[in-house]
Amino acid sequence: MVRYRTSVSLDGFIAGPDPSEADPLGVGGEALHEWALKLAIWREAHGKEGGEVNESTVAMQAQEANVGAEVMGRGMFGGGGGDWGAEPWSGWWGDDPPFRVPVFVLTHHEREALELGETTFSFVTDGIESCLDQAKAAAGGRDVLIGGGADTARQFLAAGLVDEMHVNLVPILLGSGTDLWDGLAAAGVTLEQTSAIGAPDVTHLSYRPALSG
Amino acid sequence: MVRYRTSVSLDGFIAGPDPSEADPLGVGGEALHEWALKLAIWREAHGKEGGEVNESTVAMQAQEANVGAEVMGRGMFGGGGGDWGAEPWSGWWGDDPPFRVPVFVLTHHEREALELGETTFSFVTDGIESCLDQAKAAAGGRDVLIGGGADTARQFLAAGLVDEMHVNLVPILLGSGTDLWDGLAAAGVTLEQTSAIGAPDVTHLSYRPALSG
Repeated sequence: MVRYRTSVSLDGFIAGPDPSEADPLGVGGEALHEWALKLAIWREAHGKEGGEVNESTVAMQAQEANVGAEVMGRGMFGGGGGDWGAEPWSGWWGDDPPFRVPVFVLTHHEREALELGETTFSFVTDGIESCLDQAKAAAGGRDVLIGGGADTARQFLAAGLVDEMHVNLVPILLGSGTDLWDGLAAAGVTLEQTSAIGAPDVTHLSYRPALSG
Repeated sequence: MVRYRTSVSLDGFIAGPDPSEADPLGVGGEALHEWALKLAIWREAHGKEGGEVNESTVAMQAQEANVGAEVMGRGMFGGGGGDWGAEPWSGWWGDDPPFRVPVFVLTHHEREALELGETTFSFVTDGIESCLDQAKAAAGGRDVLIGGGADTARQFLAAGLVDEMHVNLVPILLGSGTDLWDGLAAAGVTLEQTSAIGAPDVTHLSYRPALSG
């Protein structure tokens, strides 16, 4: 099964305006993830102690269960454009990225695989379907998670390649930024609601996407 | 207490594109209300038999409880612009509108009050605060419901006049239309989530709005 999960503002943005290397989530975008950062389950995965246990713990466990590989866009790996240069950098995620499954990064520029801690990043230049095939093979029967960002996820959704969509709906209004839903109505994407869980400062929604017609 | 409730698509629209007198909810907009129209509680209020009882029944009861008066824009009363003409029409709602509390219609054009069945429509031309004062007086200590449409509701939200916002989030993508959230981030509206109830084909969310700063 192919799954996508994201946090999104009530007004539909997964990042605020003016994202930059210093501020990849854009103005106000960090507030999209506050609900997660205070959880014990998140802190433990990132080598920290303490934190809360609440309804979001169950939702996050479900969203992270049975993932065998992850797919992401170049922006989520490490931002930037153009080719990788002579000393390509190793992304946003530090020496021990939290994925700990094979990660496939969609890019237009070839690059050798990169191993960091327990995570290996492979770079895929021949499109989303090839990327998904490689991720499925690496997942060994477990699920493939589309990690993001929005451009990448929208490509998979518009192509009808996502089986389950987890939307963590955060009660903030960003006003502008990266619009999760842009182009999906025009692509004929329909959504069947499969679950809804209220939690402190977030609602966890799950949908089964399909293409109409 | 002043409350606003609306149904909205996942991508933030409370009506689809190209609304008209024949199709006031715009293209695709009727799907926003399917979850409600199949409920026994809705059918009974509209003089029909049968229908479903599910989690939405409880949410709708809560959203409709203790309402003593309702406020709406001219578009929700009966559409159109300009003055009322010599034989002003009596709106979308037929001979027995479902409100059954005093309704205050915001308009730029004066008009005598209109009684239809158990509902009296009063027409208010001197702005939202006066409208709200009149509605509160008529409500006799019960709550005032901002019925809509989006323009009207956004004016009340941006002015910090809404105490509780009920959002019935429907898993459809309209792509364009009347944007519920337009301008609210810029107005400094913040939202505290107070409840979330999953139901068939809809999630009922409640928020406590405020103005930042």
